[in-house]
Amino acid sequence: MGPTLITPLSTPQPADFADVRATNLAVALRYVRAHAPCSRADIAAATGLNKATVSSLVTDLLERRLVTETGLTEHRIGRPATMLMLDNTYAAVGLEVNTDHLTAVALDLAGERLLSWRRSFPGATATPGKTISALTALARRALNRVAAEDRRLLGVTVGVPGLVEPDGVVSVAPSLGWRDVDLRGQLARSLPTDTTFPVSVDNDANLAATAEYRWGDHAGAGHLAYLTGQTGIGAGIIVDGQLLRGARGLAGELGHLPLDPAGPVCGCGRRGCLEALTGVGALLRRADPESFIDGVPSDWEPELTELIRRAKAEEKEVTAALTEVGGWLGHAAGVLANLLNPEVIMLGGYFVPLAPWLLPAARAQLALRALAPDAGGAQLVAGTLGHDATAIGGAAKILAAVDAGHLPTAE
Amino acid sequence: MGPTLITPLSTPQPADFADVRATNLAVALRYVRAHAPCSRADIAAATGLNKATVSSLVTDLLERRLVTETGLTEHRIGRPATMLMLDNTYAAVGLEVNTDHLTAVALDLAGERLLSWRRSFPGATATPGKTISALTALARRALNRVAAEDRRLLGVTVGVPGLVEPDGVVSVAPSLGWRDVDLRGQLARSLPTDTTFPVSVDNDANLAATAEYRWGDHAGAGHLAYLTGQTGIGAGIIVDGQLLRGARGLAGELGHLPLDPAGPVCGCGRRGCLEALTGVGALLRRADPESFIDGVPSDWEPELTELIRRAKAEEKEVTAALTEVGGWLGHAAGVLANLLNPEVIMLGGYFVPLAPWLLPAARAQLALRALAPDAGGAQLVAGTLGHDATAIGGAAKILAAVDAGHLPTAE
Repeated sequence: MGPTLITPLSTPQPADFADVRATNLAVALRYVRAHAPCSRADIAAATGLNKATVSSLVTDLLERRLVTETGLTEHRIGRPATMLMLDNTYAAVGLEVNTDHLTAVALDLAGERLLSWRRSFPGATATPGKTISALTALARRALNRVAAEDRRLLGVTVGVPGLVEPDGVVSVAPSLGWRDVDLRGQLARSLPTDTTFPVSVDNDANLAATAEYRWGDHAGAGHLAYLTGQTGIGAGIIVDGQLLRGARGLAGELGHLPLDPAGPVCGCGRRGCLEALTGVGALLRRADPESFIDGVPSDWEPELTELIRRAKAEEKEVTAALTEVGGWLGHAAGVLANLLNPEVIMLGGYFVPLAPWLLPAARAQLALRALAPDAGGAQLVAGTLGHDATAIGGAAKILAAVDAGHLPTAE
Repeated sequence: MGPTLITPLSTPQPADFADVRATNLAVALRYVRAHAPCSRADIAAATGLNKATVSSLVTDLLERRLVTETGLTEHRIGRPATMLMLDNTYAAVGLEVNTDHLTAVALDLAGERLLSWRRSFPGATATPGKTISALTALARRALNRVAAEDRRLLGVTVGVPGLVEPDGVVSVAPSLGWRDVDLRGQLARSLPTDTTFPVSVDNDANLAATAEYRWGDHAGAGHLAYLTGQTGIGAGIIVDGQLLRGARGLAGELGHLPLDPAGPVCGCGRRGCLEALTGVGALLRRADPESFIDGVPSDWEPELTELIRRAKAEEKEVTAALTEVGGWLGHAAGVLANLLNPEVIMLGGYFVPLAPWLLPAARAQLALRALAPDAGGAQLVAGTLGHDATAIGGAAKILAAVDAGHLPTAE
């Protein structure tokens, strides 16, 4: 080998005892969330931390208003213990911008939903300025609701269908027609300045995958891929329990996977990309051309409702189109299964209500195209958190930061 | 959210002080490797560990014969210090089985090459039993050489072009015609029983990526994808400095990426897979059909030498074929760039000597097909460790285990 010797990033660094307290605060908090009501002794027994340490950690968590005390236990042998539960003081807000809707969700520290709003909005045709105004109005309303309940805001995260730079600038969002839009900056400037909380922007698929990994029916599946089913198709990829972001945070662009050189023209100018074959616009154009008689619909929801009615009535034109789209989704799932070997591949967004007609053909293609027997164990399923998955993921990202030890300070 | 609350794998566990010593032993060892000759005080200063701890760690490393003392320094102020360097006692052996060759490499603890052998062998047509016999003979010879130099063996890792189960069984290796071959078991049983060392089997692309990540010209690139250029095409993917293995260790199957439904028939039965368009057999069939007059060549090396001679002479048939193959490789690189956002995409194996003719077309396609400007920063380059990359990676995997704190015990 040459003389160059590098230290791989993956090898251990000298053990540092300074982060131990932050880590252990987060561990204690997560234990209370999962096992409340519980006592200090319970935490000590479960975590292996000694009682004095746990007592000091709990004092800290009480000051930060992350946990609260709730009476004494009566059902135990020995001295009654003071029981702890989560303090219901905090809220995390997740937002989503997409081609035909805006969404807002707020969750408390336990992940309970405080509000969940969805507005029809023509994001595909509105200017970025108009869209951000509408989003800000929705965000303000959510923040007011949270404030009216005397909650402290942990943060706001917005999901968008596009490439997002680490500073919250949306560099490209083809289905919105955006390029280099400083969404984070504009939103942060428009929200009330009397409170300080982090505002961040992330890719919609990344957030939806985060939500499913945390709370979906396949929660904890360490290798998971989530496909957004919107006008565009993106992938959120979890590897070893972590979001795969790539070198510049741009990973997960699956929409332009070339599948059929003879297929329909895609927004990117080439033919037969996954998105041009299976995006909700392409799907409707194929299954229900009448939807487009008055131009591109600005809201897919009513069109999808009609499509589902016709699929249920077993109208052949519709079920054939859905089978074809399902097949292409299976192709893409095969590529993901071969390349990433996930446990779960999820079809999200508008694919969820259409799953009964999409999944059979998709699963057949996956089985054909995966090289490993049994598709390497990959299950192809419908998303389990529905239309809110991205916004829920926005809130989940904030709660995950708390879990990782980034605790709010005491007031 | 529902009542299900899970603890994501990615969130911190209670800090455990038990692993600190193993971690710090590895840290001290890595420091010596990178900075030898160096003193105990140097280690303390660089790592922040106190001198008593470092002294105890070094005693341990001396007993394990991982470091050795080498005279006194003369060039410093104050008391002369005993200098340390790596003990040159250990060796790690990496092997590769492929369709037309067997390879063996041995490296010392510093990554210096002790031996590097390549044998032409018809792996594509030989039975698994024959191939494993030939591999065992080569391995024995490498082990004898290592033993003759009085070195202790850290382990043996074999790379194969196929899906490898964690227990070292090769479940599918299409280009070798293998299915459910217990390579690890057979090899371990055939090697000398008077020594005990770990024998493991891994995917060839995974090992080559590991080698490039550790010692190649792009060493340390945390997001890297390596494409093997053999009869089959596989991908080794590094994400955040870690190999992406997937749920069952089967990730990285890129060879059957569907690119051209009208393309040539692939070994998998479908048409136009990446492998059917760009594998070395497909490439030669397209560029130099005469190579196949006497059947499929059992050794690609002489055929490639002739191809390169003709490419250098600018024979149009050959350069056109290489441009076409390069274009398809660029398609695949585009898929990887969009999905994984790597810093580096490497074309390895037989693509390395052909890179001057493949890369221009490949880079043009990558630029066209990547959604992010500048392909998200992905550089498309030729592999930098040449034909031995997989075998080197086999040895690198063993050295990485030492780096991670799995140290050999004292004799």
